Amino acid sequence: MTNHPFDAALRLEPLAHTPGSFSGASSLDYWNMIGPFGGMTAASAMQAVVQHPDRLGEPIALTVNYAAALGAGPFTLQATPVRTNRSTQHWTLLLTQPDAQGADAVLMTATAVTAVRRPTWSANDMPMPATPAPADVAAHKFAPGLEWLNRYEMRLIDGKVPQVWDGREQGSVSRLWVRDAPPRPLDFPALAAMADVFFPRVWLRRATHVPAGTVSITTYFHADSAQLAQSSGYLLGQAKAQAFCNGFFDQSAQLWNEAGHLLASSHQIVYYKA
Amino acid sequence: MTNHPFDAALRLEPLAHTPGSFSGASSLDYWNMIGPFGGMTAASAMQAVVQHPDRLGEPIALTVNYAAALGAGPFTLQATPVRTNRSTQHWTLLLTQPDAQGADAVLMTATAVTAVRRPTWSANDMPMPATPAPADVAAHKFAPGLEWLNRYEMRLIDGKVPQVWDGREQGSVSRLWVRDAPPRPLDFPALAAMADVFFPRVWLRRATHVPAGTVSITTYFHADSAQLAQSSGYLLGQAKAQAFCNGFFDQSAQLWNEAGHLLASSHQIVYYKA
Repeated sequence: MTNHPFDAALRLEPLAHTPGSFSGASSLDYWNMIGPFGGMTAASAMQAVVQHPDRLGEPIALTVNYAAALGAGPFTLQATPVRTNRSTQHWTLLLTQPDAQGADAVLMTATAVTAVRRPTWSANDMPMPATPAPADVAAHKFAPGLEWLNRYEMRLIDGKVPQVWDGREQGSVSRLWVRDAPPRPLDFPALAAMADVFFPRVWLRRATHVPAGTVSITTYFHADSAQLAQSSGYLLGQAKAQAFCNGFFDQSAQLWNEAGHLLASSHQIVYYKA
Repeated sequence: MTNHPFDAALRLEPLAHTPGSFSGASSLDYWNMIGPFGGMTAASAMQAVVQHPDRLGEPIALTVNYAAALGAGPFTLQATPVRTNRSTQHWTLLLTQPDAQGADAVLMTATAVTAVRRPTWSANDMPMPATPAPADVAAHKFAPGLEWLNRYEMRLIDGKVPQVWDGREQGSVSRLWVRDAPPRPLDFPALAAMADVFFPRVWLRRATHVPAGTVSITTYFHADSAQLAQSSGYLLGQAKAQAFCNGFFDQSAQLWNEAGHLLASSHQIVYYKA
């Protein structure tokens, strides 16, 4: 842990009364429109698994379901290893905050799988697309307003948020270089967060600024923590939609390190109004 | 419900003591190597949500984590709507069976999201690939041994299981027409099952018959139940791997109806030995 805002936002204090129960707080440093950036919530779930004393192995899968926007202030995060096998471990997670009446309200559910990896034949069948190097792409200056955008350095290659909302249909692919601002060593919580930095594809696809929000995101990890630490620096992120149908669409994303190793593939289903 | 073997396998009896708690049984009709076909287990999870009296809307996302192989005999499936919003509802699910000592062992965890859909602008950005019509592709005769394969009619277009395990590397794409055998009206449990009919991509990619098994699968639904009922018949399924890394790889799949509507997109992470 460092003084980096991401580490401050990730901080979870074990609660004595229940094993795997942690107290955290919504981070204003990562505030989005009506709650913290969803990637930060996914990162908190990942962190609860990573710092759990009974953890076996390293993360290979994380699914986070956003049940409602977190409010400011403290939350409770419960991480439970419900099944531990010889080399894999299955986790369920629940994030709650007191509602207006003081009752615990469920704001997030999640599942995770950790596993002991062993060296095997490996291959990357989704090679990194050819793009300019990070130094050759300008760091984007976002309009003020969404605090979490200040926590990332994003160098947008293509598929930017439309400058004009003219309803013109186009493809939904975005590519960008991304890293924490200021830089920070890469780990699983950071990767879980970066898998969700892509704005809703429907904005790009239709050039229409409709309300939209992630409902559920699943991220698969294709590296161990040593490989992540070696991958600190920029990640190339790519996102693309697949199907839009009556209020929900799915988008898939990939994150490669600069050497072209696919560190994570991620998929989400997103609510949209249209 | 009908006398179809899929409906028999899906049967869940509500347990009086706990709301959302159901009793089911592993289906020998859908038996795989050491337990039921994983798609059947996903279908059971979906069914528990679908038949829950408090369900709001229709499924849009399902994540199933396979913690261990189910044994023969009865199981208990608990489906809990942990958060109900105005138009979305979040579910957690747990499947248990008694272990050798009679204690409840967790064999599956799952989360699901159901939602009330409203008509919106919609688009399919993953069009169905051009393939021969079902009638122009022979129904595959599988070697005896895996009972669940007899419950599907599969017309394999390309990317068949290698006939020779010679270690020759190739691409990992498979395409096939699939429907229940005998035919059955399409619904969410059937679609959840069919999202998992694809054999492990590593077999195709390396022509090497290594142990492999799905650890976690996420399926997104892009249709409502009326659209599914209209889609009964063959579905075109396509699967492809993305990254293989030290014991785990991910594969993505799509299922289109004959009219080219993408009904479901699905992603899974798979254990492999190599």
